[in-house]
Amino acid sequence: MTEQFSFRLLAKDGAARRGLVSTPRGDIRTPAFMPVGTAATVKAMFPQDVRATGADIVLGNVYHLMLRPGAERVAALGGLHKFMNWPHPILTDSGGFQVMSLSKLRKLNEEGVAFQSHIDGSRHMLTPERSMEIQRLLDSDIHMQFDECVRLPCTDAEAERAMRLSLRWAERSRKAFGDAKGKALFGIVQGGASEPLRIESAKALAGMDFHGLAIGGLAVGEPQDVMLAMLDIVIPHLPEEKPRYLMGVGTPDDIVQSVLRGVDMFDCVMPTRAGRHGLAYTRFGRVNLRNARHADDAAPLDEGAACASARDYSRAYLHHLVKAQEILGMMLLTEINVAYYQELMAGLREAIEQGRLADFIAETKEGWARGEAKAL
Amino acid sequence: MTEQFSFRLLAKDGAARRGLVSTPRGDIRTPAFMPVGTAATVKAMFPQDVRATGADIVLGNVYHLMLRPGAERVAALGGLHKFMNWPHPILTDSGGFQVMSLSKLRKLNEEGVAFQSHIDGSRHMLTPERSMEIQRLLDSDIHMQFDECVRLPCTDAEAERAMRLSLRWAERSRKAFGDAKGKALFGIVQGGASEPLRIESAKALAGMDFHGLAIGGLAVGEPQDVMLAMLDIVIPHLPEEKPRYLMGVGTPDDIVQSVLRGVDMFDCVMPTRAGRHGLAYTRFGRVNLRNARHADDAAPLDEGAACASARDYSRAYLHHLVKAQEILGMMLLTEINVAYYQELMAGLREAIEQGRLADFIAETKEGWARGEAKAL
Repeated sequence: MTEQFSFRLLAKDGAARRGLVSTPRGDIRTPAFMPVGTAATVKAMFPQDVRATGADIVLGNVYHLMLRPGAERVAALGGLHKFMNWPHPILTDSGGFQVMSLSKLRKLNEEGVAFQSHIDGSRHMLTPERSMEIQRLLDSDIHMQFDECVRLPCTDAEAERAMRLSLRWAERSRKAFGDAKGKALFGIVQGGASEPLRIESAKALAGMDFHGLAIGGLAVGEPQDVMLAMLDIVIPHLPEEKPRYLMGVGTPDDIVQSVLRGVDMFDCVMPTRAGRHGLAYTRFGRVNLRNARHADDAAPLDEGAACASARDYSRAYLHHLVKAQEILGMMLLTEINVAYYQELMAGLREAIEQGRLADFIAETKEGWARGEAKAL
Repeated sequence: MTEQFSFRLLAKDGAARRGLVSTPRGDIRTPAFMPVGTAATVKAMFPQDVRATGADIVLGNVYHLMLRPGAERVAALGGLHKFMNWPHPILTDSGGFQVMSLSKLRKLNEEGVAFQSHIDGSRHMLTPERSMEIQRLLDSDIHMQFDECVRLPCTDAEAERAMRLSLRWAERSRKAFGDAKGKALFGIVQGGASEPLRIESAKALAGMDFHGLAIGGLAVGEPQDVMLAMLDIVIPHLPEEKPRYLMGVGTPDDIVQSVLRGVDMFDCVMPTRAGRHGLAYTRFGRVNLRNARHADDAAPLDEGAACASARDYSRAYLHHLVKAQEILGMMLLTEINVAYYQELMAGLREAIEQGRLADFIAETKEGWARGEAKAL
């Protein structure tokens, strides 16, 4: 354990990095996947089971938590870790993304964003300073700067306006964050799908005193090649000695491709959301358990999986639970998916250490392409 | 382990009994509470967590399972235990109760009940013989006779007709059950709220070759005193050497009162259903977590509980999860409730062994009356 936030690069394989983020609440092995705990819960999972999948850190959403149960309330109850019974590191987003995608009657200006809650219509204001205050009240270990995220595709003019606003908000976020002992603050690269805007944003943020840099405004609907092209453009301008976090990404293949390009941290609702909708992620690709062909299939999803839930229940049973809309179906598939994501990250980390990332990726893709385990 | 079903009376305290049901799949300590696993899952619980609460046996519903996924399918997949990953004893009801309460366009005659599925409208027929066949296909350890259960209040004529039909179906069920090695078949006492009908039913069933006797047609809307009066009437006519199962009961107090009168086995959806609706059962009574007074309460539901989920999460957090309709709220409260029911049964068993049941019940009621732990 450390008293300060730090990042150490342990190994490289090409551009891919194996690292260790240290925080007073524990270490985060990178490349890392952070399960999303939107409303102070990784949906449909007990926190001890999230931990058991190998997760070192989870994410909390400022937008959701400020509206319900409220940041001041969480602080009075001892902070988000105690509240959700997760004593390990937590990263909070800044609210910037979700205030634009979820809230009603938004009004954005230089100061921040005024909006109405999607839950009860109550009025709120988010600014860089208030976002920092909320993240401090939640007592998260890694704070994110307040930013404006535009959807792709968008005009370059729109991307430029939002990027420059986000840079000014980055400065205000950094100032408001101050010298929070043991905590980290990450800046967020914006700039839409424009090469010069992305480079300008990355360079400006690299020159500020952040503990890590995130790449935002991707995985917002664009094709994978656009996202990867942006990574190729941005990453050379990010400081080698700071962790790099690609926000909201993604599919297992998105993650593999991004690790290959030097990304260290990821978060995405995909494994948890898919688990609530009858979809499983496995070493043999994605399996839709709604499909009637599973109804009589006694085989488990993956009898070689590390996760017992992927071994101990037949596809027929999972199909039955999904069809009957049983909560246990969501519980099992969510756990199986989060465990697979963590298994993939562990594999990537080991492969980078051993200098055999290319082979590992080839083997991983072979598994996905081969389709379900039964086809063996 | 035993190769045959058996029941041993270990201790008595007044009319209350401490016993042991033995089956080839494991023992059931009585008085026992059986969590309900309607559609091959105790809703919102992993089977290993059901076990960890202290449950020796769960219940499966013939009506639900015959419609989805289908008894022949479960048999082809290796039986219900393997299907739901619960290797311990399972009791199945006969379908008689739910076909009357859930299905559409029922037509009942001497032969059985023709009905349409509430799921997809498909047509089915349940008879004593088909019910036995389905329970055999599911491979349950304790089968229930096929019966007709009338709702209370009802006329004596209606109760009499249904009771006599149920007796004829009891004979057909017994014959169809045959000599299933290691399995048990229980008869079901009917007769509405009529003393002579209940006694006639109990005597007739006591004279047949059943492994245990159940009391059906109670907990169907009548006040507790009507239910207890029926127990006082029926139980003296049940054989001492066979286990007694009160179907569909009940609240913690219903269970305590029934154990006091000599009942050995119970099942009820109450702890699981309540858990999905924001209600907790604890040593300090029932707690409605929806209530806003919990919003800032840092205290757990019961810091002295055996169940970690009752100790490790604040009421404020549980309130938040319930308000936000988070699945984890249902998971935690279901587990807490099932664990409390099992803790209550363990307490009853120990008290009977020690001949201090009256004291235990007085202490238990004192806890419920005292209200929530915070009031201490």
